[in-house]
Amino acid sequence: MSLTCIAVVGPGEGASEEAVADAELAGRLIAERGWALLTGGRDAGVMAAATRGAIGAKGIAIGILPSADKANASPDLTIALPTGLGEARNAVLVTAADAVIACGMNPGTASEVALALRAGKPTVIVRQSAQVDSFFADIAGSAPLHVAGSAEQAVDWIATRTSAQA
Amino acid sequence: MSLTCIAVVGPGEGASEEAVADAELAGRLIAERGWALLTGGRDAGVMAAATRGAIGAKGIAIGILPSADKANASPDLTIALPTGLGEARNAVLVTAADAVIACGMNPGTASEVALALRAGKPTVIVRQSAQVDSFFADIAGSAPLHVAGSAEQAVDWIATRTSAQA
Amino acid sequence: MSLTCIAVVGPGEGASEEAVADAELAGRLIAERGWALLTGGRDAGVMAAATRGAIGAKGIAIGILPSADKANASPDLTIALPTGLGEARNAVLVTAADAVIACGMNPGTASEVALALRAGKPTVIVRQSAQVDSFFADIAGSAPLHVAGSAEQAVDWIATRTSAQA
Amino acid sequence: MSLTCIAVVGPGEGASEEAVADAELAGRLIAERGWALLTGGRDAGVMAAATRGAIGAKGIAIGILPSADKANASPDLTIALPTGLGEARNAVLVTAADAVIACGMNPGTASEVALALRAGKPTVIVRQSAQVDSFFADIAGSAPLHVAGSAEQAVDWIATRTSAQA
Repeated sequence: MSLTCIAVVGPGEGASEEAVADAELAGRLIAERGWALLTGGRDAGVMAAATRGAIGAKGIAIGILPSADKANASPDLTIALPTGLGEARNAVLVTAADAVIACGMNPGTASEVALALRAGKPTVIVRQSAQVDSFFADIAGSAPLHVAGSAEQAVDWIATRTSAQA
Repeated sequence: MSLTCIAVVGPGEGASEEAVADAELAGRLIAERGWALLTGGRDAGVMAAATRGAIGAKGIAIGILPSADKANASPDLTIALPTGLGEARNAVLVTAADAVIACGMNPGTASEVALALRAGKPTVIVRQSAQVDSFFADIAGSAPLHVAGSAEQAVDWIATRTSAQA
Repeated sequence: MSLTCIAVVGPGEGASEEAVADAELAGRLIAERGWALLTGGRDAGVMAAATRGAIGAKGIAIGILPSADKANASPDLTIALPTGLGEARNAVLVTAADAVIACGMNPGTASEVALALRAGKPTVIVRQSAQVDSFFADIAGSAPLHVAGSAEQAVDWIATRTSAQA
Repeated sequence: MSLTCIAVVGPGEGASEEAVADAELAGRLIAERGWALLTGGRDAGVMAAATRGAIGAKGIAIGILPSADKANASPDLTIALPTGLGEARNAVLVTAADAVIACGMNPGTASEVALALRAGKPTVIVRQSAQVDSFFADIAGSAPLHVAGSAEQAVDWIATRTSAQA
């Protein structure tokens, strides 16, 4: 059986310190569970931090890049996969993931959370504002959305979902 | 010069009566301006209503479908374009549009509004809740987001943006 | 019912005079049949020629561009649809078409003919070399491939296929 | 630095015994070089054989699937990445690869070889017919195409190209 793949999504440039710290911890915890990390692959913000976390814990980190080459890829990635799809890669990233964790928020991240809910993937938003929590809770419908106060809570919740599937 | 293309996005199944009415009017007003209408193409909800509005005003309506065939296409479309991309077609729809109008809200629609803001496209959200308005206003940053109380306001605002570009 | 959409594909820069002439005629004949023309949209070679032909016959020409903007679009297009997908737009172009006509050959064109055969679309290769004819005939299997000596033959053959479907 | 990723492409159902044997060996040799294997991911033909070869040599095998779920994924894959893109995933697979090896031929495979040449990727066709060799040699132009008589030759040639880049 192939590895469970968990995407950590969030802002690149302009990511908050909090989002970067949450992403790095999430990456580490994902690796410690024996899961593979998926990110948007660029060497910036949440993507780079999650990758550092996973690699620091001797995990596998796979980046699904919008560009057609690896020029902007995080150098820590185990595997860098340029797609050439531009922003359509957000849909691919979410489709490829067994579950999605969002640290921080901007339009690109919002599109990924929304696409994850659309696809019915287990989706966690971590330490977001009350407004962000309410927005996604309102549109989620029956999609499995979890509001987490920390990266630990996010990964623990996904573990309960993933084992339920297995 | 090719026609200005305005996307009207919103829920398919489960669209509210209000969103359907707004979409139909938006489709009509887009056609009356001499613009082409883009939608997600399916024969449901906001997509079908906007298409009816545009075709009723003798406009051109183009559907960019998630499926690989035309089985679920709105029969009123001038042009039905199956993409086979699944939900990644949301990114294509937004990239193809000169501006985006959202009537109603669900995860798919949220992904389209977010991707439009990400791409810096003029984006209008029509008669949404205060929570939806605030969420997108907060993440929009410098992207050109407009909060409109009606389809007329939405199309009028886009006209000011489009003429400024021309 | 939406219009039948026929894609004309072929080289951009570096297209032969013969391929350009065939594409322009194919575009005209497609428009005269009341069909919409699809192309890769760029202002070069076969794409531009087919578009000129269709527009000269008062038809509709739709360009499905690899880029995320309209900067390189043929100015004659009725509708220019940037996708931002890079070369993955070749798959979208073929999926969106009811049938595909190839004038001239290069790697991009070969990918489109191959994807059209993969999808089982009626596919015509026009005035190609004996080697190109044999290559595609060998891989086509049960896919509906037609080898044509002229644009007229290509469009006539598609007409027999399309009416059979209707 | 992320791992060098080599795609092995070829028919799924209907693959010849020769293509399957070549793919399995190519997968093994790729793993023995310390590279990651990319395939189209399905549990059939060349994709499944290359994956078996790489995993048998304790390598990493990543499948980039056309479907939106893992139902048809090869069970041996280290990582299965559903894309939901349908045949547009052929373009993603090629874009993600540092080099491409084709064992066997059908329309899907032809599209991948053509897209690899279009992208200027080092591309090897293994034990094809003289007609297939000539077709791709004729359209390759300046793209780095290699005609190989065995999987060993294919991987050896890629090694010379990859070290030249490093």
